[in-house]
Amino acid sequence: MKIGVLGAGQLGRMLALAGYPLAKDFVFYDMSGSPSAGLGETIVDRNGEQLDNFLSKVDRVTYEFEHLPVDVAEKLAQHKPVHPCPRALQVCQNREAEKTLFGQLGIPTPEWKTADSAESLKAAAEALGCPVVAKSITEGYDGKGQAVLKSPEEAEAAWASIGHPRVIVEKFVNFSREVSLIAVRSEDGDVAFYPIAENTHHEGILRYSIAPAPGLPAHVQQDAERYIKALLNELEYVGVLTLELFETENGLVANEMAPRVHNSGHWTIEGAMTSQFENHIRAVSGHALGNVEARGLSCMINIIGEHGDIERILELPYAHVHLYNKGERAGRKLGHINILADSYEELVWRVKNCAQFLPGSPDFTCSLTAKA
Amino acid sequence: MKIGVLGAGQLGRMLALAGYPLAKDFVFYDMSGSPSAGLGETIVDRNGEQLDNFLSKVDRVTYEFEHLPVDVAEKLAQHKPVHPCPRALQVCQNREAEKTLFGQLGIPTPEWKTADSAESLKAAAEALGCPVVAKSITEGYDGKGQAVLKSPEEAEAAWASIGHPRVIVEKFVNFSREVSLIAVRSEDGDVAFYPIAENTHHEGILRYSIAPAPGLPAHVQQDAERYIKALLNELEYVGVLTLELFETENGLVANEMAPRVHNSGHWTIEGAMTSQFENHIRAVSGHALGNVEARGLSCMINIIGEHGDIERILELPYAHVHLYNKGERAGRKLGHINILADSYEELVWRVKNCAQFLPGSPDFTCSLTAKA
Repeated sequence: MKIGVLGAGQLGRMLALAGYPLAKDFVFYDMSGSPSAGLGETIVDRNGEQLDNFLSKVDRVTYEFEHLPVDVAEKLAQHKPVHPCPRALQVCQNREAEKTLFGQLGIPTPEWKTADSAESLKAAAEALGCPVVAKSITEGYDGKGQAVLKSPEEAEAAWASIGHPRVIVEKFVNFSREVSLIAVRSEDGDVAFYPIAENTHHEGILRYSIAPAPGLPAHVQQDAERYIKALLNELEYVGVLTLELFETENGLVANEMAPRVHNSGHWTIEGAMTSQFENHIRAVSGHALGNVEARGLSCMINIIGEHGDIERILELPYAHVHLYNKGERAGRKLGHINILADSYEELVWRVKNCAQFLPGSPDFTCSLTAKA
Repeated sequence: MKIGVLGAGQLGRMLALAGYPLAKDFVFYDMSGSPSAGLGETIVDRNGEQLDNFLSKVDRVTYEFEHLPVDVAEKLAQHKPVHPCPRALQVCQNREAEKTLFGQLGIPTPEWKTADSAESLKAAAEALGCPVVAKSITEGYDGKGQAVLKSPEEAEAAWASIGHPRVIVEKFVNFSREVSLIAVRSEDGDVAFYPIAENTHHEGILRYSIAPAPGLPAHVQQDAERYIKALLNELEYVGVLTLELFETENGLVANEMAPRVHNSGHWTIEGAMTSQFENHIRAVSGHALGNVEARGLSCMINIIGEHGDIERILELPYAHVHLYNKGERAGRKLGHINILADSYEELVWRVKNCAQFLPGSPDFTCSLTAKA
């Protein structure tokens, strides 16, 4: 079976590495002009002229990023199965549609309103109570197209800085930590959930993911599973879906979803019985889902901007190195390292020991180090 | 770094799958006319006309099989590092040289003699005491070019059936089981040893490998490590080396070595902290070796001849499927399945449960089932 992947970055690369052992072949369709997957055939097509050619080569289609034109996905879906479905893309590309769907399915979100002028943004900020964060309804990620308002008086400047005709305004959530749940649904409707991961961001970029999230009550995992299952079934979703959440005193609050394998699930390569990549390929190909149980405790460290001293990291007996074969550039994801351990204490020590060889890495902080 | 692999079968494929995450690229050089690696550039060259082209594309060279011309390896080694060294190939291609080296290094072997005529074969059989096995000095594997003599009188027929000008004659070893040790040596001379695996063959083809080998005394593992370390250092070897041995009442007896990653080490993909494939790539590339510790208990089941009911196997929560994307053919290695468990009892049950979906598989027997 030949799987067509829209996008040709590191996620596509890791999908292929997981798919070859299941006898899948891969064709990547790259719209960026700078594919980096580095294995499998790649069609570079910035003008959309090669879609028919791409379609003719593949049996099924999936994608590695959600910022692709929905009409392209819909056109492809008329000819070959496209998983996840184009509707999932549509929902993810519009924060208002996403939050509305969350609400319909009983998934808690921050209080939110929309605004389509500086005046209505000010009114929304007043109604919700500052601080609030305003985000363009569409486009923008990793902190772009966003502004924080500490008081309603900042509405005019925020509106100008965002520069979009419509924004969503969210009340700040007082959270103890950021977590994510990765789930997968098969063509037959079977669903499986990985243990929730705890995520640490720095300058808007994910730096560390620990899984299973330390000290997470079982009922919190179950709440998150109920939320994501509602999404999976409502969308008749096939493949891996990620739900980012805040943990608060009053339970989980959903931030956003990503219709794909996710950086906060890279720990599953060595840290789970079946990786998120293999499970996505299994689902997209119509196979049974693989076992999502954790194998011990894991922490993923992202390699951002520069590679650091990889030779030293390769000497660490508990570190698994995953490089994307990309050139160094500030803020760029170049690879990740999965650290394994049998206790959280050991895990924290090992992560700190490894991170010292990654000069761009912020100090390791998580709920464990905060307690220590 | 671009690694050139001589050979383009499933071993090369798995080397590449392990090497991409270390930012390696791959070029395969195929002399068979039927490459199956299926990823990376492949140069098909049955007449040796593309060697310069191959060399110009790669930084380092390794190989996935030992039956390639030594002069080709030597020629390549004049221009680029070739790991393991051509001398390792030379030794492995000549059973007399191999057994002689074993003897020089204090590695026990079956009693053996050589013969270069039907008459000297008869004399050797008489001197050693039948049964003996006669094998052509060069070429032949998986039981080809061999004959068993139950009495010296069978010498003439055996000589004719082998049809080689020189044979090695070995006294039968009364062994309790077949085992193998996989070790790896880095450019710096560091050495690491995987736990010994217990191997079950059927019709001359490996069917099952269990690791760590159940009930193996620590001193037996240490003996094997001493033997293979002597080989690694004598050959100034870089990469993975496999030593096949018989376990007997009087300790280990060496059968043969293979200068490459080995079918009896496929369990390491999920069953060890670092797979044999990654460790070979690390060694060949000049990196530090990875951790060779086992992660629980493993059994590898080969998929031979036909694929069986892979869909059912994908449903088993403890099975890891590795397919080589090759067409079915009697006796052909099509893939393997790694089964994981926390106890040998559970492992045996799981292996039997999985093997029922592989119609070509012989009943699972090993030292554990013999005791049960």
